[in-house]
Amino acid sequence: MRIEAITVIPQVFEPYVTASILGRARKAGVFSFEAYDLREWTHDRHRTVDDAPFGGGQGMLMKPEPIFEAVEDVASRHAERPHVVFFSPCGTPFTQRLAERLSNEERLLFVCGRYEGIDERAYALADEVISLGDYVLTGGELAALAVTDAVVRLLPGALGDEMSAVDESFSDGLLEYAQYTRPAEYRGMAVPDVLLSGDHGAVDRWRRESSLVRTAKLRPDLLASATLSDSERALVERALAESAPRAEEGGEHGQAL
Amino acid sequence: MRIEAITVIPQVFEPYVTASILGRARKAGVFSFEAYDLREWTHDRHRTVDDAPFGGGQGMLMKPEPIFEAVEDVASRHAERPHVVFFSPCGTPFTQRLAERLSNEERLLFVCGRYEGIDERAYALADEVISLGDYVLTGGELAALAVTDAVVRLLPGALGDEMSAVDESFSDGLLEYAQYTRPAEYRGMAVPDVLLSGDHGAVDRWRRESSLVRTAKLRPDLLASATLSDSERALVERALAESAPRAEEGGEHGQAL
Repeated sequence: MRIEAITVIPQVFEPYVTASILGRARKAGVFSFEAYDLREWTHDRHRTVDDAPFGGGQGMLMKPEPIFEAVEDVASRHAERPHVVFFSPCGTPFTQRLAERLSNEERLLFVCGRYEGIDERAYALADEVISLGDYVLTGGELAALAVTDAVVRLLPGALGDEMSAVDESFSDGLLEYAQYTRPAEYRGMAVPDVLLSGDHGAVDRWRRESSLVRTAKLRPDLLASATLSDSERALVERALAESAPRAEEGGEHGQAL
Repeated sequence: MRIEAITVIPQVFEPYVTASILGRARKAGVFSFEAYDLREWTHDRHRTVDDAPFGGGQGMLMKPEPIFEAVEDVASRHAERPHVVFFSPCGTPFTQRLAERLSNEERLLFVCGRYEGIDERAYALADEVISLGDYVLTGGELAALAVTDAVVRLLPGALGDEMSAVDESFSDGLLEYAQYTRPAEYRGMAVPDVLLSGDHGAVDRWRRESSLVRTAKLRPDLLASATLSDSERALVERALAESAPRAEEGGEHGQAL
């Protein structure tokens, strides 16, 4: 997959896409990544990319011309047409399902705004506008990196043999089960016996139950779209009955079962 | 505000926190940022931070010991106790309200997991577990950066005189209005006349309406918690009636009114 980004701070991308899992995937040719400085498509001495908003108000907006010229120029550099993505709190909320859909694209071109926003007319270039979540960031760069990260790890060969994108949060509509590694006891906290038992059937049942109870306690909203058996539904009902009403912004985290 | 992060890829933070708005805020002393390499708290020759999961399964988990030692050591380096934040899809969904709450902390310490996850027992260290959204990333680093970004820009002095965190998406529970800058016409697309009129009252009304209609069309779920007048409620009802049922993952974006 070819991934490109247009930005005024191209230097923030390279350290992340060369590190760790993404770095290995890029070296292995799973994806390529290039960040372009939007100022390359300006024509004045100050390389201006922003201007004051019509109608007044604080802050500066990104001008439409450099963005149009940049997107058209970058798009024309390769045969396959890019899927052009802008980022905005007004966009479609990013989800694992959206990451899966984007992982089928051959070429993604991200346009990263900064300052108070982008001239509305530039959105005519967008095939899709994505919101990373209901919060405001200083620019689209972290959103572009997060989408790159979530999409690339789904590509064949990205995670390697030692990891898997199958058995994790949202892969079955639920949160992932609690996980433990050595030591079996640490600071008085023991790993649940069943995980040391060697009984694979029992381990699988414990993990499914952990996943269901965590989802019921922490994110009951996810249960609506999960497929559950009758006994699983009963387990979830019990967990929901036990759990205190969830604070809108609490610090609770999934306990071990 | 003092912000610190514990990670196995500390090199990805510096380019972002030194760039653009965050870079200026850091230089001005609005916040400090330091990333620590988790491997400093390992005691073996290979500086091992991960191990296989109990109960079997693919991938490696982050061991509890280096995380406990790192958090305790870093926490002890300054007088004020840090608010310790872990990142996980199982955490509290990050929102602008949560960013506002975190902006009141004096010291934030982020713990960034990688690989298949973190040994469950390490979450005992967390004052709070945050999820950036319903998607899976290869690690917590981008979440730590996004939370840093969203929080720092709310701190006094971060945005400077030329910008504002008041008049933007979520500040009043709605999406932000459409914005335009010069030229007044570009590629056949004109800026709405009212924004060129100099009539501030009319501009304000247009912006409020733009904000309401965009929210109704793109994110009707946000309207439940917004405070609307009767005439605004009527406007929203009309917009909702006009807009086609929203595809779960569509590419629609807010049009100019």
